[in-house]
Amino acid sequence: MNQDYIKPDNWSIIEEGFDADRVKSSESLFSIGNGAMGQRANFEEAYSGKTFQGSYIAGVYYPDKTKVGWWKNGYPEYFAKVLNAPNWIGINVEINGENLDLAKCQSVSNFRRELNMKEGIYYRSFDAVLQNGTEISVNVTRFLSLNIDELGVINYQVTSKSKEAKIVFKPFLDAGIENEDTNWEEKFWEPKGVKHGDNQAFVTARTFKTHFTATTFMQNSIYIDGVLQEGIHDNVEESIDKIIFSYEVGLTKGQTASIQKLGGYTVSTNHSLDNLIPAAQAILAKANVLGFVALSNNQKQAWAKIWEMSDITIDGDVKAQQGIRFNIFQLNQTYLGKDSRLNIGPKGFTGEKYGGSTYWDTEAYCIPFYMATKDQQVARNLLAYRYNQLDKAIENAEKLGFKNGAALYPMVTMNGEECHNEWEITFEEIHRNGAIAFAIYNYYRYTGDYSYIPEKGLEVLIGIARFWHQRATYSTKKGQYVILGVTGPNEYENNVNNNWYTNYIAKWCISYTLEQIEKVKEHYADDYARVMQKVNLQNEEMQSMKEVANNMYFPYSKEHHVYLQQDGFLDKELITVADLDKSQRPINQKWSWDRILRSPYIKQADTLQGFYFFEDHFSKEELERHFDFYEPFTVHESSLSPCVHSIQAAVLGRMEQAYTFYLRTSRLDLDDYNKEVHEGLHITSMAGTWMSIVEGFGGMRVKKDQLTFEPRIPAQWEGYSFKVNFRNSIVKVEVNHQETKVSVEGDNSLEVIVNGTSQLIKN
Amino acid sequence: MNQDYIKPDNWSIIEEGFDADRVKSSESLFSIGNGAMGQRANFEEAYSGKTFQGSYIAGVYYPDKTKVGWWKNGYPEYFAKVLNAPNWIGINVEINGENLDLAKCQSVSNFRRELNMKEGIYYRSFDAVLQNGTEISVNVTRFLSLNIDELGVINYQVTSKSKEAKIVFKPFLDAGIENEDTNWEEKFWEPKGVKHGDNQAFVTARTFKTHFTATTFMQNSIYIDGVLQEGIHDNVEESIDKIIFSYEVGLTKGQTASIQKLGGYTVSTNHSLDNLIPAAQAILAKANVLGFVALSNNQKQAWAKIWEMSDITIDGDVKAQQGIRFNIFQLNQTYLGKDSRLNIGPKGFTGEKYGGSTYWDTEAYCIPFYMATKDQQVARNLLAYRYNQLDKAIENAEKLGFKNGAALYPMVTMNGEECHNEWEITFEEIHRNGAIAFAIYNYYRYTGDYSYIPEKGLEVLIGIARFWHQRATYSTKKGQYVILGVTGPNEYENNVNNNWYTNYIAKWCISYTLEQIEKVKEHYADDYARVMQKVNLQNEEMQSMKEVANNMYFPYSKEHHVYLQQDGFLDKELITVADLDKSQRPINQKWSWDRILRSPYIKQADTLQGFYFFEDHFSKEELERHFDFYEPFTVHESSLSPCVHSIQAAVLGRMEQAYTFYLRTSRLDLDDYNKEVHEGLHITSMAGTWMSIVEGFGGMRVKKDQLTFEPRIPAQWEGYSFKVNFRNSIVKVEVNHQETKVSVEGDNSLEVIVNGTSQLIKN
Repeated sequence: MNQDYIKPDNWSIIEEGFDADRVKSSESLFSIGNGAMGQRANFEEAYSGKTFQGSYIAGVYYPDKTKVGWWKNGYPEYFAKVLNAPNWIGINVEINGENLDLAKCQSVSNFRRELNMKEGIYYRSFDAVLQNGTEISVNVTRFLSLNIDELGVINYQVTSKSKEAKIVFKPFLDAGIENEDTNWEEKFWEPKGVKHGDNQAFVTARTFKTHFTATTFMQNSIYIDGVLQEGIHDNVEESIDKIIFSYEVGLTKGQTASIQKLGGYTVSTNHSLDNLIPAAQAILAKANVLGFVALSNNQKQAWAKIWEMSDITIDGDVKAQQGIRFNIFQLNQTYLGKDSRLNIGPKGFTGEKYGGSTYWDTEAYCIPFYMATKDQQVARNLLAYRYNQLDKAIENAEKLGFKNGAALYPMVTMNGEECHNEWEITFEEIHRNGAIAFAIYNYYRYTGDYSYIPEKGLEVLIGIARFWHQRATYSTKKGQYVILGVTGPNEYENNVNNNWYTNYIAKWCISYTLEQIEKVKEHYADDYARVMQKVNLQNEEMQSMKEVANNMYFPYSKEHHVYLQQDGFLDKELITVADLDKSQRPINQKWSWDRILRSPYIKQADTLQGFYFFEDHFSKEELERHFDFYEPFTVHESSLSPCVHSIQAAVLGRMEQAYTFYLRTSRLDLDDYNKEVHEGLHITSMAGTWMSIVEGFGGMRVKKDQLTFEPRIPAQWEGYSFKVNFRNSIVKVEVNHQETKVSVEGDNSLEVIVNGTSQLIKN
Repeated sequence: MNQDYIKPDNWSIIEEGFDADRVKSSESLFSIGNGAMGQRANFEEAYSGKTFQGSYIAGVYYPDKTKVGWWKNGYPEYFAKVLNAPNWIGINVEINGENLDLAKCQSVSNFRRELNMKEGIYYRSFDAVLQNGTEISVNVTRFLSLNIDELGVINYQVTSKSKEAKIVFKPFLDAGIENEDTNWEEKFWEPKGVKHGDNQAFVTARTFKTHFTATTFMQNSIYIDGVLQEGIHDNVEESIDKIIFSYEVGLTKGQTASIQKLGGYTVSTNHSLDNLIPAAQAILAKANVLGFVALSNNQKQAWAKIWEMSDITIDGDVKAQQGIRFNIFQLNQTYLGKDSRLNIGPKGFTGEKYGGSTYWDTEAYCIPFYMATKDQQVARNLLAYRYNQLDKAIENAEKLGFKNGAALYPMVTMNGEECHNEWEITFEEIHRNGAIAFAIYNYYRYTGDYSYIPEKGLEVLIGIARFWHQRATYSTKKGQYVILGVTGPNEYENNVNNNWYTNYIAKWCISYTLEQIEKVKEHYADDYARVMQKVNLQNEEMQSMKEVANNMYFPYSKEHHVYLQQDGFLDKELITVADLDKSQRPINQKWSWDRILRSPYIKQADTLQGFYFFEDHFSKEELERHFDFYEPFTVHESSLSPCVHSIQAAVLGRMEQAYTFYLRTSRLDLDDYNKEVHEGLHITSMAGTWMSIVEGFGGMRVKKDQLTFEPRIPAQWEGYSFKVNFRNSIVKVEVNHQETKVSVEGDNSLEVIVNGTSQLIKN
């Protein structure tokens, strides 16, 4: 059974009761972030139990030396790791001479965490009896400000339930931290100095190699029963990478001491080196003017604004409601689209498990969410991220023997360089290139903004088309072009020939690129001249590309009337998942790799991923046939699997199945389906959850500049609603078992098609 | 161009002139060993230039923690590494206060190394002018005794060419050594104590984890112009893992000081812990009684005895002669067949590059050499090594999901446990199992000794047959059994389906096993009962095995009339090696792994390996067709490749090609074809060199208890001869361009077939 300790609630993630075995999982689930930084829900006070300490600053990484058993030509020597940043949240609390530590108290009761997603504020409270017998109540409030995104706020309150309690608050900054995930157990941060003034401190450290410099800062103020205590700052312990202040107060029974700690980072990516400390001081000054109450109110308002656009309501199913909001909340905590240098890491700010931050997940899963719930500039920034890394994608392809501007985007990247080192993935899971091209198409399809293509997109498309052109080889035996030795989206097959999805998207990439070249030539003569001169693409090469695209081989079974996942699929022992002994699952934990590879089991949508991207190329009958052929072999051991299947099940009217997949994707982390939530959350698949409602249940599609809906509703729900931002209109869709209501907010009218019927919808 | 600095000589490997860039290569080429221990040709005196220090004790290993980028279920957590042993050869030499160091002399002249293979003795000499101006000549003799295989002998002579020279010899023992090849830069030896007596010292150390304890010992004696100098031992420096003696002598011009150092190891695998030092003392006592001259004479005699049986002569081609003797010499240095716990490591005692010591090379390449040049007990010991590890092979298969006694021998092993961690090799290069069964068949075919099969072989065969039975799966599409997801002998294809060689040997293993079960049942009822009870093999399982063997699928091209290396081979771009740009080779250094995999290029004989093992299953026309199809795609980037092709080219009468392949295999290391000789020699492929003469040029085969020859001779040679031990007869074959002479040594007569004509040959 999966975990089941998160209390169902429409707006909050709630844990009740202290369980040391859940601490690491809860640290992931209660993570907070504001797009610029984020942190696991580590305790402020000391904790000697099992914990995974993690604070992260967007875009700050470290190139860790590659660890590998057997080196292959083309592997990166170093690759970017998500980097645990200095700790600013720490507040050691000494109570009558004993350090508060939940792992060592006589008893802990009324322990409660609440991550209020509506407010963007994290609350924690508990009662404890210390070993020395002192009884206390603790209430903590913490948030990372959306408005001042270099600032975090903590209010830490201790109430004495004993007669007398001497409380010493010891807030600290610590740059002497290490990564949970390092290849060689090296330190990543070099201390650069500690400074402090009255109640304020600044610890500056620089990453080795990448030379990101960050000033971590704090400011503390102490209250008793709400009254500010001045002049009690009596001691500073200082070392090369750490500083600890001490504040001592005495409480009588019922009195409450609190420390308000402001903290955060100023980083050299946003400030000059000289200015890191002044910038931090300016932030603190601004925060001081506002004060805690205004800061929290602003936080609630900022989140209200995000929810205003992105909320999805579900009536009659609180677990489903909690799930979707958790997904939307985490996506917004991870990435807000303000900075085209950033991207959406698979674990966001909640863990370190993978190197790099950017996978094809961004293009395949995340862009639709950001396009529909934010200004289109956000999606444009995500596209521009790849444009800015085109040169490195070309270098990457050159390392693998390609030439003449062919581009292969890395499997995983931070700054454009490859961050992965398994030949069967790094060198062979090349379909990722297709998703990057598809996102360009998808952006134009959804926003109607063609300008991106002549400006930037065309160069990316040409690099990608060149790669596919060079990567396909001619099979004399088949008389067609084949793509040998690849890993498709189903990573449970490696080094296969003619993965249908890869061949299909390769052909599509070339054809789409050639079409866009024509279109840009016709309508954007200047851009056309500029780009063609830059990439030096001649007619002969284009002809040859066309030849490859038009003669691409696609494996097909006449017996089953389906495209084959790859040439050898039908040679496998085709035993469905239903007939597989349950004790053997998950196969990626139970089986050796060779056994997984020769089995028919599919990790995530592969052929069906192609049917998802190119739904309009196929009839519903074809979709049904392929769904019925492949889904029974699919073990959904990737977080990215259930959402696509949920959408397709909904399209096929199989609402029970769609609902099951929906719950699995939306509560993947809350219910810990994959038994790994302690390592961090699955951020990118959360966008898939959003898709499974909007595109699956809502049936939203963009067809020739029109927005169409074919809403469906699971039997378990009373109703649901969502909003999308489409061509400068905010379209709201409300569905229940009786009717679908589509309306437009703002000063707009828009023609949409609901269940095939055209409607002109006005505000 | 490959290196070309080894002087051609019939009996010796000779280097003339000092070149610091060649030191590491020569350390490999001049390595010495006696089956029980071995060492690289490191200098005795200090050397601050580039060097790879290595001394090795047979069977002493260390389980190094596995290093891997991405863990897969089934990988071994630790695996055995060949272990650099304590240094006993070291003699620092101080001359007029300056440490002799060839990297720092004013000049070095007349530098010469000679490894006299006839004698089994290594000589080194040079003249040097030190920085302090002292001129000296040095002559060193070193060997590892064949008769007393725990003993090594050094005679180190310094002659003063200056007016006066104060010489301080500082012989030492050092257990504070490290491995060149370690995963985590850990120390492998724990010091256990240093002892010394008059001119003798003993350093005991124990390996971590495996707890092999070795006492490294030395005894020194000093001479001036051949006169023993007594009582000059004046100083001992001692630490926890090292001991250094000092001996000071004064020379006038023309006088020679020499140190005779006896050294070696006594190891807990052969002695009780208490007895390590007494055993060492006993060895020294024995050596003292003999003295240096008798020890060297014994060494020459022992090697003469080895050569008497195993020598191959080649007339008119000194490079070819030197090559084959180098190969035979190194094989005998590495393994003498006395101890069934030992095996033939791919680098012998000359380097550390690979973990473990035993590959399928032993069965596929080495056993024929040892069968024909040693007593049959040696080959039996090599077979027994696998029998003794059968339980671990069953465990290994269980880790990969097999059951019921199915055995998968490790890809690489020391003690039966897997020592490798690449899924595409460790889990998929399963054809190795076939070679282990084939060796059992081959042993019986050659020796006529069936007793091994009922005694031990049958259990191994059943374990292997069970593995193939379970590993094959039924393809509904093909209506036959297939073997999916394997790596064949050509490691330049991974995770392919229906590798012909694998399928063929799998079928053969099952069929051969079922035949042997019948035969043992009929003729060895007791063994049959014992074995069948132990393995619990029922009729039903045997029937099912037979069904798989009889319905195995073999990929075949009707167009090319050849068996296909694997299902997808013909989809590749079939550009021959001749048409491949030379700048792209060796492809394993120039290309990324994916590119290698999708290319048609073959690392070593794959389909042709099957034609080599099962030559009599195919016609010469079939061999020719397959040779002509596959050899043009073969890049021979494995040391094991040229020999098989040389044999087959000879069979096909293509003597120029056979000769080219022969030179490449026999001088692979001498001429450093693969540019890696500095890492150590390719020991196992040396047995392939022997095969390319005996089986290739000599055309020797065993057919139904008869020995047949179809001798051929390269145009470059005047003649060649070899001997084989066959059914208790020593058969000598002498071939020149006019005739073939076959004779038998000893009191025997034997019927052999020469070029199809039966001859009864008497002594």
